[in-house]
Amino acid sequence: MGYRSVKSLFLSPRSVVFIGIPRKSGPGSLNPIDNLRNWGYPGRVEVVHPHVREVAGLPVTQSVSDLNSPVDLAVISTPRETVPGIIKECAEVGIGAAVVVVQGFSEADSRGKELQEQMLAEAIPAGVRILGPNTLGVSNAFSRFNSSFMPLDRHEVPVGVVCQSGVFFVGADQLIGGMGIGVDVGNGCDVDTIHALEWLGEDERLRVIALHAEEIRRGCDFLEVAEKVSRRIPVIALKTGRSHEGARAAASHSGSMAGEDRIVGAALRKAGVIRVDETQDQMDLVRGFVRLPAMKGRRVAVVTLTGAGGIILLDAMERHGLKTAALSEHSLSHIQSLSPDWMPLVNPVDIWPAVMKNGMHKAYAAALKGALADRHVDAVLCVTLGLKEAEQRHLGAEAVIQDLSEKFEKPIVVWCYGAQAHEASTRLEEHGRALAVPSLERGIRVLAAMARYQAWKDLQDPLRHVDEEYAAS
Amino acid sequence: MGYRSVKSLFLSPRSVVFIGIPRKSGPGSLNPIDNLRNWGYPGRVEVVHPHVREVAGLPVTQSVSDLNSPVDLAVISTPRETVPGIIKECAEVGIGAAVVVVQGFSEADSRGKELQEQMLAEAIPAGVRILGPNTLGVSNAFSRFNSSFMPLDRHEVPVGVVCQSGVFFVGADQLIGGMGIGVDVGNGCDVDTIHALEWLGEDERLRVIALHAEEIRRGCDFLEVAEKVSRRIPVIALKTGRSHEGARAAASHSGSMAGEDRIVGAALRKAGVIRVDETQDQMDLVRGFVRLPAMKGRRVAVVTLTGAGGIILLDAMERHGLKTAALSEHSLSHIQSLSPDWMPLVNPVDIWPAVMKNGMHKAYAAALKGALADRHVDAVLCVTLGLKEAEQRHLGAEAVIQDLSEKFEKPIVVWCYGAQAHEASTRLEEHGRALAVPSLERGIRVLAAMARYQAWKDLQDPLRHVDEEYAAS
Repeated sequence: MGYRSVKSLFLSPRSVVFIGIPRKSGPGSLNPIDNLRNWGYPGRVEVVHPHVREVAGLPVTQSVSDLNSPVDLAVISTPRETVPGIIKECAEVGIGAAVVVVQGFSEADSRGKELQEQMLAEAIPAGVRILGPNTLGVSNAFSRFNSSFMPLDRHEVPVGVVCQSGVFFVGADQLIGGMGIGVDVGNGCDVDTIHALEWLGEDERLRVIALHAEEIRRGCDFLEVAEKVSRRIPVIALKTGRSHEGARAAASHSGSMAGEDRIVGAALRKAGVIRVDETQDQMDLVRGFVRLPAMKGRRVAVVTLTGAGGIILLDAMERHGLKTAALSEHSLSHIQSLSPDWMPLVNPVDIWPAVMKNGMHKAYAAALKGALADRHVDAVLCVTLGLKEAEQRHLGAEAVIQDLSEKFEKPIVVWCYGAQAHEASTRLEEHGRALAVPSLERGIRVLAAMARYQAWKDLQDPLRHVDEEYAAS
Repeated sequence: MGYRSVKSLFLSPRSVVFIGIPRKSGPGSLNPIDNLRNWGYPGRVEVVHPHVREVAGLPVTQSVSDLNSPVDLAVISTPRETVPGIIKECAEVGIGAAVVVVQGFSEADSRGKELQEQMLAEAIPAGVRILGPNTLGVSNAFSRFNSSFMPLDRHEVPVGVVCQSGVFFVGADQLIGGMGIGVDVGNGCDVDTIHALEWLGEDERLRVIALHAEEIRRGCDFLEVAEKVSRRIPVIALKTGRSHEGARAAASHSGSMAGEDRIVGAALRKAGVIRVDETQDQMDLVRGFVRLPAMKGRRVAVVTLTGAGGIILLDAMERHGLKTAALSEHSLSHIQSLSPDWMPLVNPVDIWPAVMKNGMHKAYAAALKGALADRHVDAVLCVTLGLKEAEQRHLGAEAVIQDLSEKFEKPIVVWCYGAQAHEASTRLEEHGRALAVPSLERGIRVLAAMARYQAWKDLQDPLRHVDEEYAAS
């Protein structure tokens, strides 16, 4: 058997026992066995239930102590009063890790606090590590394992999630933009945000981590781990309980103390963590970091079919600390030659008159190539029409953008408008590396965060640029 | 024939002549005749073209002076040098209104400025009113007329759009959330933002107006009209060119002077105009004002399946100036009786433990009814699972929310999460009056704007509340 790390016991267990589970299975039963079947979990699944012989087609063991073979992980969903005793039984049969799903502990009343203490008093001396209570536990698309009773979709995306609530598992699409590996620490009585961040931060399959925290305990340890992880991959943090009312509520949701918000903010910034104010930003930034190459500076060029859109972008760029790239005459020369004489071209490059004269493909390619090749440009934001696939040949820039996104190592963000904007955005991301965003300003926020993250990374290694320039000279 | 107002000549012309039009029609041709056919325009359509006999199956007149019958509106898309002459011809045959689509006037170079002056010199003495230049013109789903060469969808929605760019026509779904009647004033050399706002503001079919302006000229007139309109229906304004760079670009996009932004902001606020910083807010607010009943105060109750979501909402409410409603013991009594003893209920009302005990329908109805009936609650934000239609009977709150949204005269905003969130949101809006939003914080921003608008309205009529209370006593 050999030693298994705590991380692997939780995230890639070879065997799991469910203690306290619905008798029924199938739609609406919230039976975690169904989830594991849907995910094709390759490990061994045991079920402990005192009253039934079979659950979801699996034989049932009457109590933990009756289990015949060693098990990596226990998932416990029994009434709260029974949990300390079950942890004791787990310890006795050599189970080293337990997800305590049930609610009603330190987040609830004084009896709940007592029970959480009792549970820890059984677990810690016996070496049983606890995730929870008040959690959906873990979800790992790569090892095809999750401990959730809520149905989850499985997507092998390079996104790690560390959270204090199951809503980030069930709502991963809306809150994060997908989840590859997730740890819901719940009340975090033993395994906490720091452990989870460290586990996910060293996982080579992940390219970004979304962090939801209602409180940050063990502040110095947290910052040390957060900084270490941030040097490798970006950590996008939604630290909630910022408001007076929110902090009060956090105490009764996961038993958290929210902390002085401005100090938290400064510490996160110093550690390279990218803090967001809103869930939508978290999702957008995760998607941006996953899809786009690094943004090396703050200078943005805009290629647009609409002058009004360009102005909206300039306002947003100033608000978010980005710079309007000064495009060289050379970069603009090709698109200028395609535009009417009366059209003075600058950044944002308004190509509509050129499109009317020369067609979309020719005009878009000329402008976008010029902008991407300009060494004073760190990223390009493209505004284009979202059309039906059949209309693309007349007025679509999809293929041009997809093609150039592969050829240049700079982020390209695209906003589509028009009746087919949503479909066109989806298609656009299917080929190439561009990121499609649902609003102009959301594109700017993504680029601004990417530029800030890169600036922080550069500060960690101030000689990198010098070395690169030396090597290039 | 009788006198027709300028407004009706532009927005509901009985006859239109297109001057300068593609020879081809069909997909990709950008022929405005195709749009009118698709929309079922019931009026007469004339085409002037010097070189062809037929366009899109319609007979062609060689010049404006050869037109046999009077025409309400001319739509001009000929090269810029020809426009002043054509306006003169229009005046001679008694055409009183012209949309000048072409670009290259005051937004372009000095020659363009000259041409714009020449065009006005022909038009004003002859009583020809001009919309544009540099515009898609008008779009009126109710009268089945639009002057756009870009294909538009027709939706009879109660949303008016006044803008300075065609992107708000073509991208109405992304930028506004739909358009019933739109006026793109372009450079606004004659008909301007104020005229358009006044026209749309008195249209009884509209319930909200989205305004995009790069500049505000005739400031006092604008504020007078804006205030008058705002008393009837909300005006959501995206005033761009706020930044230094944006203001510079606005000058070359529509020849606009953007003005001192903070003064503009204060004036708009005083006139009751709801200013937004981002296009997404404009869309969300338009949708909210169209769907929801008025929000009478600032107090919000939250019914949620997730404590973490409740905390995110509390943070957002504080950020946007809303209050957490203090729910009475009575309002909470039903849902409290369905919850475990250890679960202390306050607002946000976290009903997950009650759902686990009693099922979704019973728990959701108890909590939502309690909140809606509480006289200290002005609006409710609901957090719920987005499920497949078949799963609704197990874990869906759709029917409950739809039903209660009809029974109470308070705004209900819903955030769905989970694999089917998008589909569930669409279904949710099909019945009932609730608004579904794609993120928690966007729901709060809608409610905050609605509360601010109502507070402004109340200030205009400070005795209304007293009267109402007197009447109720």
